[in-house]
Amino acid sequence: MDKQSIETRIGAIAGDREHGASELARLCLQIGADSALYYPAADTSSLLAVLMTQAVEMSAARPSMAPLYNLLARWRRELQELRGLDLATARRRAANSAAAVATISHDAVRRVAFQARALIGQRRCVITHSLSSTLVEAFSGLQGTDVSFIVSESRPLFEGRRLARQLSAWGLETTLITDAQMGVFAEQADIAMVGADSLLEDGSAVNKTGTRLLALAAREQSVPFYVCCERFKQRHPDMPPFELEEMRPEELGLEEPAGVQIRNVYFDVTPPGLITGWVNEDGVTALGPEGQGGPQRQ
Amino acid sequence: MDKQSIETRIGAIAGDREHGASELARLCLQIGADSALYYPAADTSSLLAVLMTQAVEMSAARPSMAPLYNLLARWRRELQELRGLDLATARRRAANSAAAVATISHDAVRRVAFQARALIGQRRCVITHSLSSTLVEAFSGLQGTDVSFIVSESRPLFEGRRLARQLSAWGLETTLITDAQMGVFAEQADIAMVGADSLLEDGSAVNKTGTRLLALAAREQSVPFYVCCERFKQRHPDMPPFELEEMRPEELGLEEPAGVQIRNVYFDVTPPGLITGWVNEDGVTALGPEGQGGPQRQ
Repeated sequence: MDKQSIETRIGAIAGDREHGASELARLCLQIGADSALYYPAADTSSLLAVLMTQAVEMSAARPSMAPLYNLLARWRRELQELRGLDLATARRRAANSAAAVATISHDAVRRVAFQARALIGQRRCVITHSLSSTLVEAFSGLQGTDVSFIVSESRPLFEGRRLARQLSAWGLETTLITDAQMGVFAEQADIAMVGADSLLEDGSAVNKTGTRLLALAAREQSVPFYVCCERFKQRHPDMPPFELEEMRPEELGLEEPAGVQIRNVYFDVTPPGLITGWVNEDGVTALGPEGQGGPQRQ
Repeated sequence: MDKQSIETRIGAIAGDREHGASELARLCLQIGADSALYYPAADTSSLLAVLMTQAVEMSAARPSMAPLYNLLARWRRELQELRGLDLATARRRAANSAAAVATISHDAVRRVAFQARALIGQRRCVITHSLSSTLVEAFSGLQGTDVSFIVSESRPLFEGRRLARQLSAWGLETTLITDAQMGVFAEQADIAMVGADSLLEDGSAVNKTGTRLLALAAREQSVPFYVCCERFKQRHPDMPPFELEEMRPEELGLEEPAGVQIRNVYFDVTPPGLITGWVNEDGVTALGPEGQGGPQRQ
């Protein structure tokens, strides 16, 4: 694990399409741990300066994903405690600390998955958009039940197809639709559930583009719409300004007609007024300004 | 033009993906005219019986498309007048009558396009979904203006890409997005306009799947949403029951994961409550039960 390969991995965060926000945050912590152990440094102080800079760089690479900021900020706070230690101890403690933060994140996701599964309860049909690793974990526990799923393909990269294949492999009845059909199929579901990459300060949910359309269709057809994510996904006012990430137009896989501008805005924002509830580690909480007084169990 | 080729063309109506509802209705009238001239018949009475049967068969092939029913029904009424004529005269008159009905349809579309263009007026940015030949005609008259367009790709067959290419060829500024991004981009438009395949008795608009999602996004973002189509697209209570057509799952172009059911519902229904107005031959009319008292100019 040399300097070059660590820098290459950090540079790849911005373009990563394989991982959701929490998984990517844990990947950043893994890179941080490797950097703590192996990145060249003359002494503890310069090591910590490098790790801090790399952590900031990684969280800034994905401004739509609050967990990168939150988990790396938590690690950075723990790094502050290592000043004054000898270099070898500081390296080991910094790496252990990154691993511990990743474990906290993973535990939080598991608790959300448990709550999401409890919320499905006796419901018979779930509609979802995109692929949330939290929901994959929740749905994995439904094997052997007769809960069925409606999954949208999730253009441009068709993550929905991966989810459909996984659900089907688990023996769960699964219907795959184009994103455009969400308005037709929402009414067949008893509950709509999505993950999120971030929750904004006002309770809006940032998730794969198309989520807001599913929320609108669910609202119109009186289907409850839940956002399932851990508290690390909440943005706080001290974070850098929020922006919606846009990816390369080539991802749409279309031969670009001359003169046509192709846009590939990767996320959208679902306002709290369209969200029935936020499923987090502790149950279901109301979102938005009126919900900030604390969790409201349903 | 022999019996076989006429029957082949009639058989191809159900699977046609090249034409919108009005164009397809005129294609049916062209087939009807050819059948009138060339289909084998011993006498006028048997010719008329064949033409009636073929007309009913063609309109039943696309139950989501009211113009097929309306225009072919109009032709059938005119065919009734030909009883008692000699066979050669009946053939010629039946063919002329089909051509005349097609001309009436085409004129109606042109009038709607004129009204749609007038409605755009000083607006700067139009968002649309799918490809409406009526709107193509309306937009063609905007060459040389600085009206810009946001066009969704319209899965599964990407008609939106054809529209984007056409608009761009006309020098009109055009942005192409995935269907899932309609929730992000609707607010950038000053007006949302779509065509329709049919209007239901309650004023709902049947159009390419995804239209209802654009209507929901437009409503949420206070963008006026107009359905542009001629009166021949109105369904009447005497028509066969309405059904949403579903096409082959293979059209989605996805390798089907084992056990996953792929759905390809080709149309959706936008309720009148989401429609700002219906642009028809005479201007803008309110839709739905409250609008049935007559046209309401805006």
